[in-house]
Amino acid sequence: MVSHSWPPQNQGAKKPHVVIVGGGFGGLTVARRLRRAPVYITLIDKANHHLFQPLLYQVATASLSPGHIAMPLRAIFRSQKNVRVLMNRVGEIRAQEKKIRLVSGDEFTYDHLVIATGARHSYFAHPEWEKNAPGLKSLADALRIRQKILATFEQAEAMLAIGKEDDAELRKLLTFVVVGGGPTGVEMAGAIAEIAHHTLKKEFRGIDPRSTRIILVEGGEHLLMAFPGSLGENARRVLEKLGVEVRTGAVVKSVMYDGVYINDELVSAANILWAAGNTASTLLKTLGTPLDRAGRAVVNAQLSPEGFDDISVIGDAAHFVDQGTGQPLPGVAPVAIQQGQYVAKKILATSRSAKLADFRYWDKGSMATIGRGRAVAKVGRLHMTGFIAWLMWSVIHVLYLVGFRNRFAVMILWMYSYVTNSRAVRLITSDDL
Amino acid sequence: MVSHSWPPQNQGAKKPHVVIVGGGFGGLTVARRLRRAPVYITLIDKANHHLFQPLLYQVATASLSPGHIAMPLRAIFRSQKNVRVLMNRVGEIRAQEKKIRLVSGDEFTYDHLVIATGARHSYFAHPEWEKNAPGLKSLADALRIRQKILATFEQAEAMLAIGKEDDAELRKLLTFVVVGGGPTGVEMAGAIAEIAHHTLKKEFRGIDPRSTRIILVEGGEHLLMAFPGSLGENARRVLEKLGVEVRTGAVVKSVMYDGVYINDELVSAANILWAAGNTASTLLKTLGTPLDRAGRAVVNAQLSPEGFDDISVIGDAAHFVDQGTGQPLPGVAPVAIQQGQYVAKKILATSRSAKLADFRYWDKGSMATIGRGRAVAKVGRLHMTGFIAWLMWSVIHVLYLVGFRNRFAVMILWMYSYVTNSRAVRLITSDDL
Repeated sequence: MVSHSWPPQNQGAKKPHVVIVGGGFGGLTVARRLRRAPVYITLIDKANHHLFQPLLYQVATASLSPGHIAMPLRAIFRSQKNVRVLMNRVGEIRAQEKKIRLVSGDEFTYDHLVIATGARHSYFAHPEWEKNAPGLKSLADALRIRQKILATFEQAEAMLAIGKEDDAELRKLLTFVVVGGGPTGVEMAGAIAEIAHHTLKKEFRGIDPRSTRIILVEGGEHLLMAFPGSLGENARRVLEKLGVEVRTGAVVKSVMYDGVYINDELVSAANILWAAGNTASTLLKTLGTPLDRAGRAVVNAQLSPEGFDDISVIGDAAHFVDQGTGQPLPGVAPVAIQQGQYVAKKILATSRSAKLADFRYWDKGSMATIGRGRAVAKVGRLHMTGFIAWLMWSVIHVLYLVGFRNRFAVMILWMYSYVTNSRAVRLITSDDL
Repeated sequence: MVSHSWPPQNQGAKKPHVVIVGGGFGGLTVARRLRRAPVYITLIDKANHHLFQPLLYQVATASLSPGHIAMPLRAIFRSQKNVRVLMNRVGEIRAQEKKIRLVSGDEFTYDHLVIATGARHSYFAHPEWEKNAPGLKSLADALRIRQKILATFEQAEAMLAIGKEDDAELRKLLTFVVVGGGPTGVEMAGAIAEIAHHTLKKEFRGIDPRSTRIILVEGGEHLLMAFPGSLGENARRVLEKLGVEVRTGAVVKSVMYDGVYINDELVSAANILWAAGNTASTLLKTLGTPLDRAGRAVVNAQLSPEGFDDISVIGDAAHFVDQGTGQPLPGVAPVAIQQGQYVAKKILATSRSAKLADFRYWDKGSMATIGRGRAVAKVGRLHMTGFIAWLMWSVIHVLYLVGFRNRFAVMILWMYSYVTNSRAVRLITSDDL
């Protein structure tokens, strides 16, 4: 049944073997840019699909199905014959031996290694908080959060149905706390407010979903700290109109099973969602090169960790200081994509032993949605808010979606749910709830 | 936060309380037909959605997303104010006291009880087979099966990638056994053959998915025993063209973790799927009235178990002998729907203490798809096969889908995947694999 080994013993043996760990924006870009290159590529990801992270919160909040924002990696590379996709986990990098080791213990040798392993959410010094306050990185995360949000409304309704009138319990079930006022936190809080105050409005006979309380907690002095303060203030106003309590300059001191301490106030809540802070994959530790506080590998001007020109680290896994701002680049898709493009060029240059200029990031701007038809955007010195910004956000995100079918479906769905304000994917699909 | 109790103490108190257990085709029909009736309805289902069962196999085989064939019950009844939806499990029926008891221990009294709890798959005397040979009834079942099918191809590819050449293991991973040659089994086997022989054809570099072996086992003398033999033979020919091994008159003697005994031959297979035999929900046992061998409640000409006119049992949960054929009605959607319509009429008649004729089933015919653009259909004495039958099947199923958005999306998807033969939803969304 073996059609051929990899790289093919016969002709391919002399071509360099590029191993890419991670099928996110960065890894995907490298592999696609090497489409016509004289190399053999092994793309390893623990998932079988590429995920359009920026829309993940819409799966968690029942606007989109997993199928709309995820695409099987094999389908993407079906006709790119120099790519082999492996669904697997990498446990260790042996930089000295030019080898990676899978968790299964099996090993691969590489000529060039690209580490694009992204980040998980960080609970700072409190990993034990994760089980109480799930974060949003994978489809599994999103589906878990979707189920939990929907299930709590059901529990509240059931409580009243059996005539149990426990107001404290009811208030706990109908309180949502989102920790972290960055783009994800703002998007989640806005979406939950819309579900509670609009989508579910007429659907319950016992509880009144409009009495749902949504609290967004941010440690910084305004929301969206990566944006100018004025945009953060605009986001606050929009969220408050949607019925979200915004608490800036507030610290979450402890996260329990059904409550959080915000500063010194205990808030009981059945749903606590984590959107604060990231930490890079632990795989990077096995590199043995310097990492920053977020666990990202410090890379040089060619995106390599010092001393390993045959290794590139990109995207959320890399700590690269921008010459312009003197700041490390943020963990956003455009950075990962541009770094992926650079690394593809670098690999080609090396094979021709040509020289390559240093990596430079071109900041096209950044944006975040807040709610239905509202967003904020920053393009150079230009700031945009409201419907225009949201329209821009929608167009750009739909255009970047991999695969025409998805783009089309998502556009239709957005138009549909913008008009009807319905969230059709409100499904609890797991039976172990 | 309590908007009102149920049924409302004030005006509603005198109106009868109809409790419907199960939100499938039967239960849904009863509730909708009582739209304008002077009753209060409580619809209880363990899921939060109505599921379009006939297309469930398309979720299990990655053609459709859960969102395409499921609709939140609350959304369906949003504007039908006399319906309250409860996501809950019923543990016991206390017919004498006109009460049902939830597994939580809480109780409801009813004036009329409708039991539409459907069926689970039956493993005859071998419940221990279930973990090795999952069946297909819920969205959770479908997603589990989808993950397992996709994961085995990944495992096979990974095996070769690390240079492990174990032909026996490889053959096991690439062997699928479907037990049961009814519509579900035929549809599953056909779909898996298409995935292996067409969809995945070009997507692997190590294994050759076309070498996948799919075996369909049926105890009867031909496939689709509910249909005339000629249609069963047609199904066999189509499946064999798709590369399915059809074994009729064959008995599965034992199901192990990674193999089955078909008659006395041991077949190693990583994927064993169960599509043979149903058994009604165990809740019916608590009725204390006669059940048939499949655990269905035997009902009289008014669809009530003998001695309980205030209880109706419909759909897969009921054993109703058809006056015409002298046979019990099959467990298909049209039966559940027509019985639901009858029970709604009955409840109205009772409230007016009017007389009602006995239930009669109008057989509009039955159909099953086999593969891409192939189906068999029986309408009265008319038999149809091939593309025409498939077209009819598609139109009817799309028309019966609840909710315009889904209908539209599913139609687009079918046209798209009929042309491109791609299965876009090939996602492994659970991380506990």
